Amino acid sequence: MYPEDLLKQIAFIKEIDKLKYIQRKTKLFNSDRNENDAEHSWHLALMAIVLAQHSNEPVDILKVVKMVLIHDIVEIDAGDTFIYDTKKAHCNTEEERLAANRIFGLLPEEQAQELIAVWEEFEAGETNEAKFARSMDRLEPLLQNTSNQGGTWKEYGVSYPKVYEKKKVIKDGSEVIWQYAEELINESVEKGILSRGS
Amino acid sequence: MYPEDLLKQIAFIKEIDKLKYIQRKTKLFNSDRNENDAEHSWHLALMAIVLAQHSNEPVDILKVVKMVLIHDIVEIDAGDTFIYDTKKAHCNTEEERLAANRIFGLLPEEQAQELIAVWEEFEAGETNEAKFARSMDRLEPLLQNTSNQGGTWKEYGVSYPKVYEKKKVIKDGSEVIWQYAEELINESVEKGILSRGS
Repeated sequence: MYPEDLLKQIAFIKEIDKLKYIQRKTKLFNSDRNENDAEHSWHLALMAIVLAQHSNEPVDILKVVKMVLIHDIVEIDAGDTFIYDTKKAHCNTEEERLAANRIFGLLPEEQAQELIAVWEEFEAGETNEAKFARSMDRLEPLLQNTSNQGGTWKEYGVSYPKVYEKKKVIKDGSEVIWQYAEELINESVEKGILSRGS
Repeated sequence: MYPEDLLKQIAFIKEIDKLKYIQRKTKLFNSDRNENDAEHSWHLALMAIVLAQHSNEPVDILKVVKMVLIHDIVEIDAGDTFIYDTKKAHCNTEEERLAANRIFGLLPEEQAQELIAVWEEFEAGETNEAKFARSMDRLEPLLQNTSNQGGTWKEYGVSYPKVYEKKKVIKDGSEVIWQYAEELINESVEKGILSRGS
């Protein structure tokens, strides 16, 4: 017979397929098709790999990649919450914690504990790896919205001050990428695809 | 101004968004919705991470993850070729090589060379990392087809001998996973979701 570990891992692999059905608010580049969480996670992983040199601090890139690959898995149970949602907290909800325990809990114990810890580290955003991973998570929708004439900013009436506040955490991961991101945001206001707001 | 590297990397990041539109023949688990290459690549990356202990030989898991994240990027230009296609070679076509040069060539020179080399290593399938990565690439659609009452095997009339031949490379990456996969294939014949063939 196969090792018990393998059967648990296969159960996890089947379960996480559901991430492909979780729709984000953000659209693909130059597109009106919503991105799903699996596509988003794949994109962040490759972004982290090709942009690693711009991290403010040296990072364990494998850990960053693990973080971005799994960071949204809890949404299989908890659903995607829009980053600019004013009613519901975006992260660290009790619902997400239960989801992490259930889904990563399908894995062999040691592996479950490792991935829950990686997910918690990402959520806490305090280590160099988490800061860089979170800067990737903020950068991708910024690139998408600017390619979509404002995208979700226009669609949901989000203006400059809120966007700036959410995006500035990019700076904690990478000063260089933040310079680029900040200019994109400013240009978006000048082009009229992001409202100046109050 | 930002480093020139960053602008090249951003161009690459935008370009690879197109992988989300490349439809595979295989459907998601228990589903009639086709999987796309970005979703597939994300799934393989997490499979590699959770299944690494079953590799026949120790592997550099970051390299395996890079391989599976980028292995289908050439399909942005070359398109997806069905693994059981009898007319067109599945890999290593001249078209794919040109695609690799064009798409990875958007990156700064050193990074482009690194990722082209990683892609070529995957295609050659000779190193421990390539063997394990390729076993992930064969395992995912096997799990999908068995969850879909035969899936593409039924849809395209592929029978046991061909499936067995394509899947047995899993053994080169992992004897343990191959035992599991072989039993899944045999069970599929018994259940009548995979034709015994001639």
